[in-house]
Amino acid sequence: MDGPAVDLNSDVGESFGRWVLGDDAAVLAEVTSANVACGFHAGDPSTLRRTCALAVERGVVIGAQVGYRDLAGFGRRFLDVAPDELTDDVLYQLGALDALARAVGGRVAYLKPHGALYNATVHHDEQAAAVVRAVREHDPSLPVLGLPGSALLGHAEAAGLRAVTEAFADRGYEPDGTLVRRDRPGALLHDPDQVAARVVRLATEGLVTAVDGTDIAVRSDSVCLHGDSPGAVAMARAVRSALDAAGIAVRAFA
Amino acid sequence: MDGPAVDLNSDVGESFGRWVLGDDAAVLAEVTSANVACGFHAGDPSTLRRTCALAVERGVVIGAQVGYRDLAGFGRRFLDVAPDELTDDVLYQLGALDALARAVGGRVAYLKPHGALYNATVHHDEQAAAVVRAVREHDPSLPVLGLPGSALLGHAEAAGLRAVTEAFADRGYEPDGTLVRRDRPGALLHDPDQVAARVVRLATEGLVTAVDGTDIAVRSDSVCLHGDSPGAVAMARAVRSALDAAGIAVRAFA
Amino acid sequence: MDGPAVDLNSDVGESFGRWVLGDDAAVLAEVTSANVACGFHAGDPSTLRRTCALAVERGVVIGAQVGYRDLAGFGRRFLDVAPDELTDDVLYQLGALDALARAVGGRVAYLKPHGALYNATVHHDEQAAAVVRAVREHDPSLPVLGLPGSALLGHAEAAGLRAVTEAFADRGYEPDGTLVRRDRPGALLHDPDQVAARVVRLATEGLVTAVDGTDIAVRSDSVCLHGDSPGAVAMARAVRSALDAAGIAVRAFA
Amino acid sequence: MDGPAVDLNSDVGESFGRWVLGDDAAVLAEVTSANVACGFHAGDPSTLRRTCALAVERGVVIGAQVGYRDLAGFGRRFLDVAPDELTDDVLYQLGALDALARAVGGRVAYLKPHGALYNATVHHDEQAAAVVRAVREHDPSLPVLGLPGSALLGHAEAAGLRAVTEAFADRGYEPDGTLVRRDRPGALLHDPDQVAARVVRLATEGLVTAVDGTDIAVRSDSVCLHGDSPGAVAMARAVRSALDAAGIAVRAFA
Repeated sequence: MDGPAVDLNSDVGESFGRWVLGDDAAVLAEVTSANVACGFHAGDPSTLRRTCALAVERGVVIGAQVGYRDLAGFGRRFLDVAPDELTDDVLYQLGALDALARAVGGRVAYLKPHGALYNATVHHDEQAAAVVRAVREHDPSLPVLGLPGSALLGHAEAAGLRAVTEAFADRGYEPDGTLVRRDRPGALLHDPDQVAARVVRLATEGLVTAVDGTDIAVRSDSVCLHGDSPGAVAMARAVRSALDAAGIAVRAFA
Repeated sequence: MDGPAVDLNSDVGESFGRWVLGDDAAVLAEVTSANVACGFHAGDPSTLRRTCALAVERGVVIGAQVGYRDLAGFGRRFLDVAPDELTDDVLYQLGALDALARAVGGRVAYLKPHGALYNATVHHDEQAAAVVRAVREHDPSLPVLGLPGSALLGHAEAAGLRAVTEAFADRGYEPDGTLVRRDRPGALLHDPDQVAARVVRLATEGLVTAVDGTDIAVRSDSVCLHGDSPGAVAMARAVRSALDAAGIAVRAFA
Repeated sequence: MDGPAVDLNSDVGESFGRWVLGDDAAVLAEVTSANVACGFHAGDPSTLRRTCALAVERGVVIGAQVGYRDLAGFGRRFLDVAPDELTDDVLYQLGALDALARAVGGRVAYLKPHGALYNATVHHDEQAAAVVRAVREHDPSLPVLGLPGSALLGHAEAAGLRAVTEAFADRGYEPDGTLVRRDRPGALLHDPDQVAARVVRLATEGLVTAVDGTDIAVRSDSVCLHGDSPGAVAMARAVRSALDAAGIAVRAFA
Repeated sequence: MDGPAVDLNSDVGESFGRWVLGDDAAVLAEVTSANVACGFHAGDPSTLRRTCALAVERGVVIGAQVGYRDLAGFGRRFLDVAPDELTDDVLYQLGALDALARAVGGRVAYLKPHGALYNATVHHDEQAAAVVRAVREHDPSLPVLGLPGSALLGHAEAAGLRAVTEAFADRGYEPDGTLVRRDRPGALLHDPDQVAARVVRLATEGLVTAVDGTDIAVRSDSVCLHGDSPGAVAMARAVRSALDAAGIAVRAFA
């Protein structure tokens, strides 16, 4: 009989050439799903290979973290790319990462958009549909990971793809279930123990305490841990330990 | 019973965004193997998709024309990239193109290096081995297309890959079988009829007249037609017509 | 005593490496102001140098056609870059082009945004202000060329810069003076003689016939001719000839 | 009356977008000449501006650290760029950095090539001449900083430019005055005190102990401190303190 379980996902593979970002090895020791960059917003081919090899070694599932073609902006700036071109940009990234993953014994097992593309596909219907079209053309068995209620997951379900929802371990929630804007108080939680306790409660009760103190229900098949902030590794470890201590299985959704 | 046959290959998919290069549709009407750019020296994802779709429609076999990461130099400048990184760069390009080819019903069926990488892998042992390693890791059933006697084909054979040789329809040959340097007289042939007659002779007798007037034997499983020079389409048509008229089958090697 | 006069501007220097766009030499024979690309949306350094040298040779004034950092999209896709970063991106481009212009005896004498940045700065207050800030920091004597009534020209004037208005020779106008959207009938005019007659009337009477047949007043210190469409050179020649025949001086605003 | 003096230079401004490299503020507190990246191998425009502003604030002279157009390789891979194109690439970088430096009250006061371009221009006559041509065209009053005996400094002197020599604080020397290759023992010195003592001796006696224990004479108008290695800041501080303690003035050559 299954007890409660949760998937932990984090962004990795975001170094580029000489520039190192985050501690992928440490993060991959805690999470079960790795959102690996695909070269458009971050991640040179050798970084992708190394990251995939680490993920395979640790039994972490590999996902394609696709982004806008914008190295200078790290994919964090909205780009008004035409839907057909976005589909092709996503296909290109999916294929590229998959080739490197397969070279080290893995494979791309899901897709999650990065940064501004993630944010855009919450509401931007055409870009959301364009991303889903790429997944369907590439491999309709791949789940799409995103925000509950997003246009992205709506299109994924409509296309017969598996839509996987995620919550954010260290982000504040409004009473209506949306995230607190980053420029408002309570947007980011910094205390590893507090964050760990939230994730445990989310995994067992499906509840999060919003910024106004009320409890709200949050659907989540996975919990996102940020990988490149200072303290990211400490927070990942605290979450993982708390889940283990609470007897909650941590396993990949894919 | 088989009569004489030859494959014709040409570079396509080398447009990038707003910039159009060559007349891919016209070239793909004449050749049997399409060396499709992979985005590092040329070719945005939507160009790759369109080019692959055209190739599939016309029954032309798709090859990955991998290059150095150098859009500004169109991959025509030697880049002293470390072998391990080159292997990963090639894997990335192979996977990316393959995803776009598969989205339109095709697949990558061989590899040919582009420009300065092509030239480097004639003699540069480490880079040649690095390219071959990528093919072996990606799909050891893929043939490698290159210059007879090149380090590239030597490593391909040593790795158990199929090594496919090519001759150049419109390039002059030295008596020793090497190509006349581009800055010397006779390096390039411009007369479509003369080029067509050379290709017919190459396909039937395996001989080419060198710049000094002597006949030399040239091994070639395929003949390369240049795709982006002025007159490229006219030359491709002349070659194709001459082969048809001579009863020589034009068919892909892959 | 001065008769009527008009400036003609056109986009040039938009080739990139192997990819050639437009016939800069022919266009520079007809116009008086050259909007030279600066490398972010198009234009490698050697193209910029050659284009500036041609402009200097023909007495054409050089302007910096600054754009978003987006080669793949040719600067035609809105990019939500932060204002401070946009200011620095524009400064970088201004300095780079100026160095190449000065190496051949010219200099950057005005600024005009390109593509999606041009469109954004009509209404996007922060990006418009960011572009103007860059001009002010670089050289407050440089005029800014843009659409009458745009946020860009508003900020330029408020900052004490010279704001120069332009009309479009081959674009249809709505009765309210805005341009007909590109996806509507009448957006683009293709007949060189008709376009030439419009420019003559604009230069002498300040009037244009809108799509509904009414005459409207259009402010313009300069008239923009498109440089990279098929027929661009023929249209530029027709406009220039018509202005010469009408005794209207064609001279740079800067 | 002047006592002994030395210039200290270091690479800065090598962050790119989201990716941070080195601690520029700490390094700029110790050196007198800042080799600021120019965007081709590293350094987005906002990084360049911030770095130049810090340099101006601390009275550090700004130099243009020009490189190959190779972000993925951080300019550390030889690129066989044609000399004319290299000249234009260098001009572009010089102008771009100068515009950002001037916006914050500074200016580019010298040039030093970066990475593989630095190494290439030691022996590659055409590339060395191409870099010097760019300086001469841009501003013949700019000194060129490089290796004693390099083709670069030879061409600089022949062109009437000021050639400034540098020594390396933390690199081993062969008895013939060349640097110990990086893959050999003794190539890199890691002890801050030992490095500081070497720099003091270099500044006072012009001597360095080579790997075989012999003393050799080394010409140097400036001493290069590496900016991005672990311990770089500690080493810079040790060197600066030792020079101060020895009564050796630390001042910019430019």
